[in-house]
Amino acid sequence: MRARDLGINIGTLPTGPDNAITDVSGCRVGHTTLIEGSGPLVVGNGPVRTGVTVVLPHEGHVWTEPVFGGHHCLNGNGEATGLLWLRESGFLTSPIALTNTGSVGAVRDALVRLEVEHGTPRDSLNSLPVVAETDDGFLNDVYGLHIRPEHVERALRTAAGGPVGEGNVGAGTGTICHGFKAGIGTSSRHVALAGGVAVTVGVLVQANYGRRARLCVDGVPVGRYVSEDEIPGPSHTEPAARSGGSIIGVVATDAPLLPHQCDRLAQRAGLGVARAGGVAADASGDVFVAFATGNRHLRVSQGDHLFRAEMLPNRFLTSLFEAVVDATEEAIVNSLLAASTMTGRDGNTAYALDPARLHEVMAAHRPRVSK
Amino acid sequence: MRARDLGINIGTLPTGPDNAITDVSGCRVGHTTLIEGSGPLVVGNGPVRTGVTVVLPHEGHVWTEPVFGGHHCLNGNGEATGLLWLRESGFLTSPIALTNTGSVGAVRDALVRLEVEHGTPRDSLNSLPVVAETDDGFLNDVYGLHIRPEHVERALRTAAGGPVGEGNVGAGTGTICHGFKAGIGTSSRHVALAGGVAVTVGVLVQANYGRRARLCVDGVPVGRYVSEDEIPGPSHTEPAARSGGSIIGVVATDAPLLPHQCDRLAQRAGLGVARAGGVAADASGDVFVAFATGNRHLRVSQGDHLFRAEMLPNRFLTSLFEAVVDATEEAIVNSLLAASTMTGRDGNTAYALDPARLHEVMAAHRPRVSK
Amino acid sequence: MRARDLGINIGTLPTGPDNAITDVSGCRVGHTTLIEGSGPLVVGNGPVRTGVTVVLPHEGHVWTEPVFGGHHCLNGNGEATGLLWLRESGFLTSPIALTNTGSVGAVRDALVRLEVEHGTPRDSLNSLPVVAETDDGFLNDVYGLHIRPEHVERALRTAAGGPVGEGNVGAGTGTICHGFKAGIGTSSRHVALAGGVAVTVGVLVQANYGRRARLCVDGVPVGRYVSEDEIPGPSHTEPAARSGGSIIGVVATDAPLLPHQCDRLAQRAGLGVARAGGVAADASGDVFVAFATGNRHLRVSQGDHLFRAEMLPNRFLTSLFEAVVDATEEAIVNSLLAASTMTGRDGNTAYALDPARLHEVMAAHRPRVSK
Amino acid sequence: MRARDLGINIGTLPTGPDNAITDVSGCRVGHTTLIEGSGPLVVGNGPVRTGVTVVLPHEGHVWTEPVFGGHHCLNGNGEATGLLWLRESGFLTSPIALTNTGSVGAVRDALVRLEVEHGTPRDSLNSLPVVAETDDGFLNDVYGLHIRPEHVERALRTAAGGPVGEGNVGAGTGTICHGFKAGIGTSSRHVALAGGVAVTVGVLVQANYGRRARLCVDGVPVGRYVSEDEIPGPSHTEPAARSGGSIIGVVATDAPLLPHQCDRLAQRAGLGVARAGGVAADASGDVFVAFATGNRHLRVSQGDHLFRAEMLPNRFLTSLFEAVVDATEEAIVNSLLAASTMTGRDGNTAYALDPARLHEVMAAHRPRVSK
Repeated sequence: MRARDLGINIGTLPTGPDNAITDVSGCRVGHTTLIEGSGPLVVGNGPVRTGVTVVLPHEGHVWTEPVFGGHHCLNGNGEATGLLWLRESGFLTSPIALTNTGSVGAVRDALVRLEVEHGTPRDSLNSLPVVAETDDGFLNDVYGLHIRPEHVERALRTAAGGPVGEGNVGAGTGTICHGFKAGIGTSSRHVALAGGVAVTVGVLVQANYGRRARLCVDGVPVGRYVSEDEIPGPSHTEPAARSGGSIIGVVATDAPLLPHQCDRLAQRAGLGVARAGGVAADASGDVFVAFATGNRHLRVSQGDHLFRAEMLPNRFLTSLFEAVVDATEEAIVNSLLAASTMTGRDGNTAYALDPARLHEVMAAHRPRVSK
Repeated sequence: MRARDLGINIGTLPTGPDNAITDVSGCRVGHTTLIEGSGPLVVGNGPVRTGVTVVLPHEGHVWTEPVFGGHHCLNGNGEATGLLWLRESGFLTSPIALTNTGSVGAVRDALVRLEVEHGTPRDSLNSLPVVAETDDGFLNDVYGLHIRPEHVERALRTAAGGPVGEGNVGAGTGTICHGFKAGIGTSSRHVALAGGVAVTVGVLVQANYGRRARLCVDGVPVGRYVSEDEIPGPSHTEPAARSGGSIIGVVATDAPLLPHQCDRLAQRAGLGVARAGGVAADASGDVFVAFATGNRHLRVSQGDHLFRAEMLPNRFLTSLFEAVVDATEEAIVNSLLAASTMTGRDGNTAYALDPARLHEVMAAHRPRVSK
Repeated sequence: MRARDLGINIGTLPTGPDNAITDVSGCRVGHTTLIEGSGPLVVGNGPVRTGVTVVLPHEGHVWTEPVFGGHHCLNGNGEATGLLWLRESGFLTSPIALTNTGSVGAVRDALVRLEVEHGTPRDSLNSLPVVAETDDGFLNDVYGLHIRPEHVERALRTAAGGPVGEGNVGAGTGTICHGFKAGIGTSSRHVALAGGVAVTVGVLVQANYGRRARLCVDGVPVGRYVSEDEIPGPSHTEPAARSGGSIIGVVATDAPLLPHQCDRLAQRAGLGVARAGGVAADASGDVFVAFATGNRHLRVSQGDHLFRAEMLPNRFLTSLFEAVVDATEEAIVNSLLAASTMTGRDGNTAYALDPARLHEVMAAHRPRVSK
Repeated sequence: MRARDLGINIGTLPTGPDNAITDVSGCRVGHTTLIEGSGPLVVGNGPVRTGVTVVLPHEGHVWTEPVFGGHHCLNGNGEATGLLWLRESGFLTSPIALTNTGSVGAVRDALVRLEVEHGTPRDSLNSLPVVAETDDGFLNDVYGLHIRPEHVERALRTAAGGPVGEGNVGAGTGTICHGFKAGIGTSSRHVALAGGVAVTVGVLVQANYGRRARLCVDGVPVGRYVSEDEIPGPSHTEPAARSGGSIIGVVATDAPLLPHQCDRLAQRAGLGVARAGGVAADASGDVFVAFATGNRHLRVSQGDHLFRAEMLPNRFLTSLFEAVVDATEEAIVNSLLAASTMTGRDGNTAYALDPARLHEVMAAHRPRVSK
């Protein structure tokens, strides 16, 4: 079940064929999902409700063929490695990995190790992968260090184009958004520019932020109608649950953007979060990474003295910004609709947003006068 | 006519008594409005549809008694002086002035001169005022240098608390937002924190951004219903009109925030813009300045070796963030509702959003089932 | 008299033919110098010891043919307009103008007006010029608004390649560095990269920062030897003189750098300031702007859908960084050596560093054992 | 052997009693040093020449009693976790840990786990520690994941005030600076402010950057005299050795600084690197973290509604900036003098700078005329 299955179409731009980040040609996504045990939390033993999601910018080896990239931090109560290098170099030189708060280091070191084992020449090693996280500790033994190198390796090995798993998978296995069970969500937009040029923009989110009362779906204040009295949120179970959470967004495009233009795209993802009801709460780590595959072959050999790159003129970016805002909002809705109710550590339960109930609320707000 | 007069209440937090930035105790606003001439544009002669708006953080002299402040740039296609100093020092040491693109320098130098003439001791002179702008050139002779020092002086002299003029006044005289005549708008929120502590957050905008199709009012896609076929937008008159525009937001609070916390508030204003339909277009200069008056007496004399300051713990900021998001969105709606249709240079006309028509659209979207 | 005339060669890279920023092909510099009156300060009447310096990146119209650029702020107690736009767009779209603190606005508005009068199409107008300043108020009537549009126009009209005026000229007319009369200084480096590729890096400074005791020339602590007891500094005349001051640096290169690489070059200018003895004092506005002319024709027409750009691989940048550090340090020394003693407002006198005395100090530190 | 033992006194400010970062009252440093094996590199088996160094801001638990902090990135070719949170919150909430590139994740997750095991209440858990790195791969099996949680725990447990181990210890075990064996170095300054107030500034570096030819010691171009012909550098052994390296600097002060003031201190550490000959090469990760212990008790309980903080007025910061610049430069020299020649993986040898030879070069440059 996705937003469009309920007639919820965010914005007016058309989606790509799979309405997923993988609509950006060559872009691949892989998940490793870990669900084990139940009952009381014993740190190190579980219960486990977590995973790893990786996004690969193209079909080749990003370690030896980087793409331009950038990022934006809307609220920094979270971890994301590799950002200093991304900003300084302008290059994304690693898969982007998403996981839980307690496993950022394990995933990071695993990616470095895989880069070395891949046979990357030592003078091309970057060792500075992008790994971001949200805190799935309401359901998961977040400090139990359950993510091991093989889980990262498996997510990479199984990464593929085409439709992307959403909801309780990978790094979204244990996440909660606006008080509903959420997880991974994705969406894409097709943008026709002047002169027959067209580009694709895709967004993938790990949604784990926000409080119920502010949830909006395509402008409808769903969170006010489907309150925590009707469907409990985590704060009903555990008063001390942090109201903040986090959201990580990955923005991909096949447009030929330079690094500073990628930064600009990344900042727009936050505007999509705002439309869904986020305020980038104090306890939230809201970080967005963007990459552009329109320039390739940027490090083919040491012998090259110059790279040749194309650049989309800035005046075309407004359409891409709209695409990012809309696709981010829809990816969040998709993360909610794909997720199913889950019980995790200490019997904590995160309830899914019932699609039928959402449909009912949306229908009640449909205009009586069409124009 | 303001949003609440139409039953449009953004969010659930209560407003301050005047629903204006001046609800922050001591905060004052002054406008100088310049409307002269009509007919074809002759640079330097008019027609003139512009002005200056100043925001003073408290009832004293900000030149000698600064407050903590910060800023955020959502999109930098605009000018705002004084930001390097604001970031470095953490202090707002000048009135904040808003004007048109072509007059930033004149207003800036006028403020410096007024600071000198005020008798500020030379070793306390900052000479680095905050002056921001949007481009009102669809209606105004924006490069005609019509703002003179006496206009700045008048805005300062007449600045007052209480209700704030909105719409076609001051720096909003000639601005356009989502294809409708707009201008200055303001709103405020009252935030009750734990332990009986309450703070006020106010926002004032100079709204001049966005395209029609994306305008949302409290989640309702008004811009799709009241299209440019029904009420023309500037791009109907002048195809080359920049689709971008700009928005400047001033965020005020009486909470005791430190400078880095003011930066955080400033970034949230952009989330309010997003909810109203903005995407921070390429051609837009979207800059937000925030100040906090909860700490005063920060530079009483050279003899002091330490300042004593209070700091609101970060965990309380989420409520303030919600207040900024909501008040920014409402300030934009207020800027639209207060504005009236205006004809300016070359007969260009910016049409106001008819409140009755807005009411009709909003009513059509009101839910048929209340819960 | 320049540093190399005294045998002072900073670093080991060769200079360009004129050892000036104009060694970057096409780069032009123009000065307007204003020296009028003497005696007590009467704000608005003088005495006047100030000016304007403009740097044009190439022989064409930068308004319609921008170049990639970036900036870095080492300390933000100063004003520099146009930086939001430079960061957001990646383009330098105006001449860079330097002047005094009180005239930033006048110079800014004059540049906007000249851009309009140049006939720039309205949809290409940027109106966001880069104007930076330092405070020459020890000698000059800094708040007297003595810079008028014709002074800006004259600096632009007379801008030329070849040797660049240094010392008491243009925006350096009234500036003071490490307690000595200083002004404008410049230097350049020729950098041979792998594969026969060579690039030029040039730096121009408006030097107005630092205290005597920390001045170093090529590592020699000259400020400790030529103390304020021997040659008075401004603090001897006027105890309240701000110990900070400012330095503005303009970094130019003909290398094909992208905007984020220009930011990196700009930050290295501060390292050159550090080597000369600067600490970026609290009261200092230390801002560096960098541009790269290796990519041209970046906005030839609205019809272009893509720009084609070249990019110097990051691994070559280290040599350019060394060039920036060394050229900045040498430009500062040149600004000191070219300046002559000047008396300004209220009889305040800024004394030049006597080249013979400098030579004597440097000679005393020359190693007795060559290796 | 330290710089002052050779009569090398950087700047004129007095040092603290131990001339170490631990002169900031309560500040503690701990090292775990790992030296095992020899011969050819087998990833995962060694040889091992690495370690962990931790800096604790005070004698209490920083996890539950944070201090204000900030950072600056001079060049981002490196990893440092925790910086998003440090910037956003203004708080340093963890020990600062330094290690090698390949072990950042392991150290990071270990610190998170220790914070949990410490019994930190879940709603106070930050889980976002500051861990930075340099690449010791010339000597060490940097991707062998040799740092384990017990090494982090041991560094924390043994952290102490008083004299600090320098050279080949902790995170400096395998590092190289300006082509000489280097490691950890530290220095401090005592700064007397107006009115009898005095503060201490301390710096600790993990020095692993720079090329020989640019090394300067107190202004003397030592690297030109003690060339790689005389004492080989790593590029003689291994042509592909990255010329960049990295430097991490930790700046501590007992002054009551706010977070944005800590950022300012951090940027000045880079100026000290510049004076020692660094240019922040492309391949370098030059990151500086600063904290200020002048405000304590910033999170004593959930019941507090306001923190009370003191703030050193900005005008006093210039003296602290001088202290940071000088202490950083001296810490680098100390890291060189304390290090001894080391042979590591594949027989690679990093040679120490012979103190007698340094003394000889310095003496040759001492002025013949004292004034």
